[in-house]
Amino acid sequence: MSDYNLNLKRIVERPERYFPRNELLTRADDGPIFRYTYREYCSRVRRVASALDRIGVAAGDRVATLMWNNHQHLELYFAVPCAGRVLHTANLRLSDEHLAYTINHAGDTAVFFSPDLLTQVESIAPLLKTVKVYVVLGEGVPDTTLAPIYAYEDLVAHGDPGYEFPEIDERAPASMCFTSATTGNPKCVVYSHRGIYLHSQAICNADIMAISQYDTILPISPMFHVNSWGVPFAGVWMGSKFVFPGQRPHAEDLLKLIDEHRASFCYGAVTVGIDMMNLLERQPFDITSLRALMLGGSATPASVMHYFRERHGVIVYTAWGSTECAPIATAVCIKRDQRDLDLTDEIAIRVRQGLPVPGVEMKVLDDDGHAVPWDDKAVGEVYVRGPWIATSYLNEPRSKESFIDGWWKSGDIAAVNTDGVIRLVDRAKDLIKSGGEWISSVDLENTLMAHAGIREATVVGQPHEKWIERPIAFLVADPAAPRPGDAELREHLSAHGIARWWLPDRFVFLDALPKTGVGKFDKKLLRQQIDAYVAQGSVAA
Amino acid sequence: MSDYNLNLKRIVERPERYFPRNELLTRADDGPIFRYTYREYCSRVRRVASALDRIGVAAGDRVATLMWNNHQHLELYFAVPCAGRVLHTANLRLSDEHLAYTINHAGDTAVFFSPDLLTQVESIAPLLKTVKVYVVLGEGVPDTTLAPIYAYEDLVAHGDPGYEFPEIDERAPASMCFTSATTGNPKCVVYSHRGIYLHSQAICNADIMAISQYDTILPISPMFHVNSWGVPFAGVWMGSKFVFPGQRPHAEDLLKLIDEHRASFCYGAVTVGIDMMNLLERQPFDITSLRALMLGGSATPASVMHYFRERHGVIVYTAWGSTECAPIATAVCIKRDQRDLDLTDEIAIRVRQGLPVPGVEMKVLDDDGHAVPWDDKAVGEVYVRGPWIATSYLNEPRSKESFIDGWWKSGDIAAVNTDGVIRLVDRAKDLIKSGGEWISSVDLENTLMAHAGIREATVVGQPHEKWIERPIAFLVADPAAPRPGDAELREHLSAHGIARWWLPDRFVFLDALPKTGVGKFDKKLLRQQIDAYVAQGSVAA
Repeated sequence: MSDYNLNLKRIVERPERYFPRNELLTRADDGPIFRYTYREYCSRVRRVASALDRIGVAAGDRVATLMWNNHQHLELYFAVPCAGRVLHTANLRLSDEHLAYTINHAGDTAVFFSPDLLTQVESIAPLLKTVKVYVVLGEGVPDTTLAPIYAYEDLVAHGDPGYEFPEIDERAPASMCFTSATTGNPKCVVYSHRGIYLHSQAICNADIMAISQYDTILPISPMFHVNSWGVPFAGVWMGSKFVFPGQRPHAEDLLKLIDEHRASFCYGAVTVGIDMMNLLERQPFDITSLRALMLGGSATPASVMHYFRERHGVIVYTAWGSTECAPIATAVCIKRDQRDLDLTDEIAIRVRQGLPVPGVEMKVLDDDGHAVPWDDKAVGEVYVRGPWIATSYLNEPRSKESFIDGWWKSGDIAAVNTDGVIRLVDRAKDLIKSGGEWISSVDLENTLMAHAGIREATVVGQPHEKWIERPIAFLVADPAAPRPGDAELREHLSAHGIARWWLPDRFVFLDALPKTGVGKFDKKLLRQQIDAYVAQGSVAA
Repeated sequence: MSDYNLNLKRIVERPERYFPRNELLTRADDGPIFRYTYREYCSRVRRVASALDRIGVAAGDRVATLMWNNHQHLELYFAVPCAGRVLHTANLRLSDEHLAYTINHAGDTAVFFSPDLLTQVESIAPLLKTVKVYVVLGEGVPDTTLAPIYAYEDLVAHGDPGYEFPEIDERAPASMCFTSATTGNPKCVVYSHRGIYLHSQAICNADIMAISQYDTILPISPMFHVNSWGVPFAGVWMGSKFVFPGQRPHAEDLLKLIDEHRASFCYGAVTVGIDMMNLLERQPFDITSLRALMLGGSATPASVMHYFRERHGVIVYTAWGSTECAPIATAVCIKRDQRDLDLTDEIAIRVRQGLPVPGVEMKVLDDDGHAVPWDDKAVGEVYVRGPWIATSYLNEPRSKESFIDGWWKSGDIAAVNTDGVIRLVDRAKDLIKSGGEWISSVDLENTLMAHAGIREATVVGQPHEKWIERPIAFLVADPAAPRPGDAELREHLSAHGIARWWLPDRFVFLDALPKTGVGKFDKKLLRQQIDAYVAQGSVAA
């Protein structure tokens, strides 16, 4: 028993042997959808893995991808680590400087990229210190300053479909992702083969995501963002059918894919879920095939859950985690004696962040390091640990601020109810300090988004002479409804139990809220340029 | 990440924190059913764990249990390993000599036993070389020669509910079981914390057993038989409700428990499934709450599957494994493109032994060590390996016959169809050698049991001067149907595709077939005493 490694070879060899007929699809921008089977997929994984030596990518080397959600990316998810290299799914939405920083920090020797990103890659290339080779997706090599460069299909064509994956120690690194740090450079988390294996098992659990061979999975969450929540690894293990949305999908593309391919499991950022909801109100799509729509990245408003459930019969699930958690740490849980609750009470549980998934330990500590009481009032910072939770960043002095005695200190502030279910109140840094008390920006945002006239809302603290900070709300109006005024919004918040002193000093309507590379509202930018955003917006009357 | 151990503490602490209200029940022989919650269960686990020091059971010691399926046994499943001791679930159905051998071989220092087994324990006590202390379930100590002896409830009462489990290395032994060897002494398999953790994750997988917090689990498979298929560990992790059948349950007790407590998941030996089927034909029970009835230990006849499905809407699942596999290695799999098969074709897949569960590797090798073609004709011996599959027996020279290069050589002969799904043909030792060819006893048995007049069937080889061996069938008639004659049975077998030279030379009706301690037909005994059994039976006319 002692020598049997938990590694990614165990995962990809299962559909190869036992589910070769199941399909994987990718939406093309132009032309028909691409489709092939696991038989071809696994053969190509072996071919690409075998080609790494030839292009000078040695065992132990790091390999960057700058790619969208497609089948080639999924090939590299296994080809690179199963060949004993380390996959770095670089975040193509980072600034050139940050992107180059991550590639240099990882020490990547190769960059695999999508041809539509050629200009971006060319512009960062002079900044890259360790990259020795480029590979561009497709049959041919474009006219470029990048050198040496290979066409991906050339690697496949000359690769060996009979290549045998080496036996890899389970503690060896398999992949790495960078957090989008709010200050300073991104920080690098390394995932071991063992960590990914165990995370995959955990999310296949019937009480968590229940990923199955019967699923048709539509991954909206980018594959360059925390391994697309780890679902690609789990789905391949089970032999699930995949439908990849390809490059730059819009809500309409996604809904069309769900409808046409009868997707059963779809997951992505809450903001994308809201986009889909808004489009569904205007345009008919059949999304009843979804057994689960999983939304994350920020809190899902109850109104969104009600919409999908009542109008389409689709259950919205939530989870909580982070780059440091690979990423799933908690998942929503309706306990067996809560199954008969009415929908409003059930959704009041579903909007919370749930329970630790089997394998993860959690504690919520107050400023003195004591566990907070489970009264849903006291708040503290969330700490987690477990077999796939990081215990350090790669070559990073800031590690000691975030990892304490094997626990990851999340920076998220939560309350815990009597069932042990957490409710995220805010990021520690997004809590608004007004007088001697804290105001939760998340509570304000969720309540504002529950108003029919509000499509999106984010609340940040504005420096204030007397109160230190005061909340200011940035909003996007729903064009289909009358735009609410200042007084109406205050009344709405009060009616939903928001304390008087929590009410934002201002409500500013923008055409769009700034978002980060992974689709979250960019509070950092709003805070930094708060005056400019206020000036460009229109203030509610 | 590197220091986080996969151990049983992680499992039992989850329901303690997050599912304290869920219940565990045990049927009492006399009086009302016992029930308590995980809150009390986990508290008692800690109490018992804390009491081991006091009664002289030191860290690292082995602890034997001689107990039925009840909540106290489940307490010991965690109390012993989480306290750094090793649980040996001794098989109370073994002969005194074998039982004493297993306790001596394990080096057990303590024996926990059910008071109804006092005579058995007293009779083996003089043979035990390492046992220093006895613990009897219940409030008081009976009049006995055993000494020193404690009452289990005394340990609980004086135990510490705040006891903290030590941090245990994942490679440390957690529990041990003995195989019921067909020749010689039983062989001992040791399970590590890691192995049990990973096996539990695997069977909770949505595509395997999908064990869930919503389940109400009725374990028929004895907790002294390969950890009751590992389900107690998995069910506790998920916080599932348990209904334990207590001591010496009959089919009527089991059906009553399913009916009254709306069990959702029930598992046990095929022979018990057949008993339940026979009783259901005479007496009404509502078993529609079952989402799964899992039968194992021998092949489940298609007729049994049809019965449960057509008459009660209950799906019978099968799996394959062994003591060496902890025990699950494969599970039935209806692939996504086989979901629309008609019931007969679906059941033709379900009676096979399925695919390796995620994490397990399998190969089927012919006598020359080559993988057999996936044509469902060629047969070979099944080998498996994986993170919870044993790689040796404890202190056992016979290990080298069963473990080869990290693979367990199962002794089971199987064919593989084009989907990779195995079909067990026979135990290597049960194959009947007739002339230069092999006859599968299992195929004959399944076909015989599909006859309406036959309740049970087992076929063994009888030594034969000319043909080496010839098959002889031992049968139990169904009292509700006319007993078929010799000619009718031959015709029935031929009509179902059995070759002429496979037809048994004799059909012998017995009142009951001899069974092993774990409920399998005892072919070894039949072969040894074949003449006596033939003499006591009535031969079909």
